[in-house]
Amino acid sequence: MTDVREIPGGVTAPHGFSAAGVAAGIKNGKKDVALLFSHRPASAAGVFTTNRVRAAPVLVTMRHLEDGMARAVVVNSGNANACNGPQGPGDAEDMAAEAGRRLNIPGDQVLVASTGVIGKPMPMDKVIEGIRRASAELDPRGGARAAAAIMTTDLFTKEAAVTVELDGCTVAVGGMAKGSGMIHPDMATMLGFVTTDAAIAPGLLKSALARVVERTFNMITVDGDTSTNDMVVVLANGAAGNPLLESEGPAYTAFCAALEKVCRKLAVAIARDGEGATKLLEVRVRGAATGRDARLAAKAVASSSLVKSAVFGEDANWGRVLCAAGYSGAAFNPGAVDIYVGDVKVAENGGALPFDEAAASRVLGQKEVVFTIDFQQGSGVATAWGCDLTYDYVRINGSYRT
Amino acid sequence: MTDVREIPGGVTAPHGFSAAGVAAGIKNGKKDVALLFSHRPASAAGVFTTNRVRAAPVLVTMRHLEDGMARAVVVNSGNANACNGPQGPGDAEDMAAEAGRRLNIPGDQVLVASTGVIGKPMPMDKVIEGIRRASAELDPRGGARAAAAIMTTDLFTKEAAVTVELDGCTVAVGGMAKGSGMIHPDMATMLGFVTTDAAIAPGLLKSALARVVERTFNMITVDGDTSTNDMVVVLANGAAGNPLLESEGPAYTAFCAALEKVCRKLAVAIARDGEGATKLLEVRVRGAATGRDARLAAKAVASSSLVKSAVFGEDANWGRVLCAAGYSGAAFNPGAVDIYVGDVKVAENGGALPFDEAAASRVLGQKEVVFTIDFQQGSGVATAWGCDLTYDYVRINGSYRT
Repeated sequence: MTDVREIPGGVTAPHGFSAAGVAAGIKNGKKDVALLFSHRPASAAGVFTTNRVRAAPVLVTMRHLEDGMARAVVVNSGNANACNGPQGPGDAEDMAAEAGRRLNIPGDQVLVASTGVIGKPMPMDKVIEGIRRASAELDPRGGARAAAAIMTTDLFTKEAAVTVELDGCTVAVGGMAKGSGMIHPDMATMLGFVTTDAAIAPGLLKSALARVVERTFNMITVDGDTSTNDMVVVLANGAAGNPLLESEGPAYTAFCAALEKVCRKLAVAIARDGEGATKLLEVRVRGAATGRDARLAAKAVASSSLVKSAVFGEDANWGRVLCAAGYSGAAFNPGAVDIYVGDVKVAENGGALPFDEAAASRVLGQKEVVFTIDFQQGSGVATAWGCDLTYDYVRINGSYRT
Repeated sequence: MTDVREIPGGVTAPHGFSAAGVAAGIKNGKKDVALLFSHRPASAAGVFTTNRVRAAPVLVTMRHLEDGMARAVVVNSGNANACNGPQGPGDAEDMAAEAGRRLNIPGDQVLVASTGVIGKPMPMDKVIEGIRRASAELDPRGGARAAAAIMTTDLFTKEAAVTVELDGCTVAVGGMAKGSGMIHPDMATMLGFVTTDAAIAPGLLKSALARVVERTFNMITVDGDTSTNDMVVVLANGAAGNPLLESEGPAYTAFCAALEKVCRKLAVAIARDGEGATKLLEVRVRGAATGRDARLAAKAVASSSLVKSAVFGEDANWGRVLCAAGYSGAAFNPGAVDIYVGDVKVAENGGALPFDEAAASRVLGQKEVVFTIDFQQGSGVATAWGCDLTYDYVRINGSYRT
C-alpha cells in the first residue's frame, strides 16, 4: 500500500516553486493575477477542454507545452480571453512574453490561463502591470496568494498537497484549482495547477496526468456546461532529488497515487463550492458491467437537474436517480438495480422498498450526501461528485455579466 | 404551398373521436384519468423514450401497437407506474383490459400511458373506477377534459388542431400533450396524443410520426432529463373519407405538414410551460454544415443551465451561447459564428460586437426570446425550444415527491 500523506499548503509545498497573487484591477479590488515559477527547468504536461470553442490561453498553453517542458504559469481571473478574435492569442502570448522577461526565461516556457467573462477584450495594461508586480512578489510560501488570485465566483480557495516516498526519497505534490460554474469537465476541468518536486520524464508525466484526471477532475460536474477555458497543468521540477522516473513501476504507481490524491481533493473542493451549492453530492456506482458504464451512470446522476433539486430539497427521490442512470448511456438491467441514500437502502431490484424515511432524512440533512447505485452485474465502479441545484445558482447566473 | 389551417380544439377536433377526463382520486381532487376513443378502427403509431428504464405502460403500449392498429388510449396522471417491478406491466395491462371491456373492444387495442411519481405502486382500485366513469362520460367534445386529466405540474392544458386538404377532402389533425419537468426528449417526449380522421396506412403513419417528432418534440428541453415514460402516439381513423394514403406524394406531404403543425404547437407549449419558466426560449441555428450539426447546437444551447439562467436574468450573455454550441458535438468554425438576440446582432465572426444594450434588453424583457446562431458554413438549419431556469424550478423540484 502506497503511503500518501497529506501536508499543508498548495503549489509551493513542493521544493523549488515560488508563487504570487496580486490585485491588478481586472476585477473589483480582489486578487486577479497569479504567477507560479519553478526555480529549475521542469517537465510539464496538460489536459484541456474538449469544447470546440477554445479560449486563446488554451491554444497558447498547448503550443508552449509541445516540448514537454515549462518553467512558469501566469493566470488571470476576471476575463476569460475567449471569443476575442485574433487579438486573443496575441494578448495571451504577450502575457507569456512579459512573464518570461521578468523571470529571465523564454516566453514559450510560460503557460497561460485565464478565467472570467467571455467575449470582452483583455485590459492588457492592467494585466501586464499585474504580471510585473506578481514577479516582484514571488515567494516560496506564496501558494495561498496565488490560489486566491485565480478565483471567480469561488467562495473558498482550493489547495491540496501530499508527500509520498519514491525510491527512498520524499517527494511532494501540491496543487490549486478554481471553480465554480460552467463545470462539466471533459478531458479537463476549469483551472487546475499542480506542482511536484519529483523528477519525472515529460511523456510519463503526461500519462500520469491523463490517468488521474479521468478519475478526478473529469468526474465532477456543477451545471453540465463544459467551459471554453478548462485546463489542468502539472509541473515537475525534480528538486526532491529522486531518480528520474522514466517508466512504469512501483515508483510511478506511488507517484500516481500522490497525484490522484491532490487532484481528487481539488476536484471535490470544486464540486463542494459549485455555484450556489449548499451540499456536496457524491454518486458511487458499483457492480457495473464495465468501468465506462459506471462512469457514465455516476456522472449522469450527479448532473441531473432533478436529482440536484431533490438533494437541495432533502427529498429521497430515488426514481430520479434511476431515471438519470437510464438515459446515461450505461448498459444495465433496470430490474436488478439497488439504490442507497447514505447507508439507507431505498430501492431494490429496480423497485420501491419500504424504508425508514426519518433515517433517509437524517442523511439528506447533512452537508455531504452519498448516493450508491449497485447494478449487481459486474465489477465496474466509479464515483462522481456534484452539488445541489439551489435558488442561489439561479441568482448568481441570472446576473453574472452585468 | 400546403394550406394548413388552425382550428379550435384538440384530440376530438377530428371526426369520429370521443374523449373524457375524470377525477379518480389518484391525485388530490384534480382530473387524473383520461380516455380517448375512436369510433372506428384506426391506424396507430408511436414513438417512445430511449431511456433504458422504461415505465410499464410504455412496454405495454409498444406491444399493443405491434399490429399498427388501436381504438383507444387510457392515461392516468399522478403516478408514473415506473420502477414497480413485475406488478407494473400487470397493472398497465389491467388498465387496458378494463377500458376494452367498457368500450367493447379487445384489450390489446387500448394503449396505456401514465405520468407522475416514479416507484409507487398504482392505486388500482381508484384507477379502475376512474376508467369506468371516464368510459361513461365519453363525449365527442370531451377533448379539453382529457387534456386537463393528463396534467401533472403543467400550468395550462396543451391542445392543438388543424385542417388540411388531402385529395380534395378536408382532413383534421388534433392533439394534446403534457409537460412540464423531466423534459429532454430523445425519440419522443413526455406524453403526446394525436388524432386524425385521415385515412392512412399504419406503416406510412409511423414514418410520418417519426419524421415530424424529430423536428418538434425531440427539439424541446426543459431540464435535460429524459423521462422514463415519454411517448407520442397517433391514431388515424379515416372518418374524413379521403382516399387511403398508402405511399409518399403530395397528399402525404400535406398530411405531414398538418401533423407537424399540431406537434410543433404542442411541443412549444410544453417548453413554454416548463417547470418554473417565465419565458419561452427559441434557439435557431442556420448556416450549419448539416442538419444534424444544427440540431445538436440548437438543442445544447436551449439546454444549457447557464444560458437558461441568463435568459431568466435578461442578460445578453452570448459567450454562454457560443460555449454551449462548442460542446454540443456540432462541427463548426468558432471564428465564423454570428449570434443574434432577437434581431440585435451581438457577436460577429465569433467575437464581441459593440451592440445596443438597450435594444437587447428590450428583446430579453419579452415573454419569448429568440437566439439565432449563424455558422456561415452550409445550409443546415434547426430550431429548438426551451425555457428559462428560475427560482421556481428549484422550488418545484426540491419538494415534488413529499
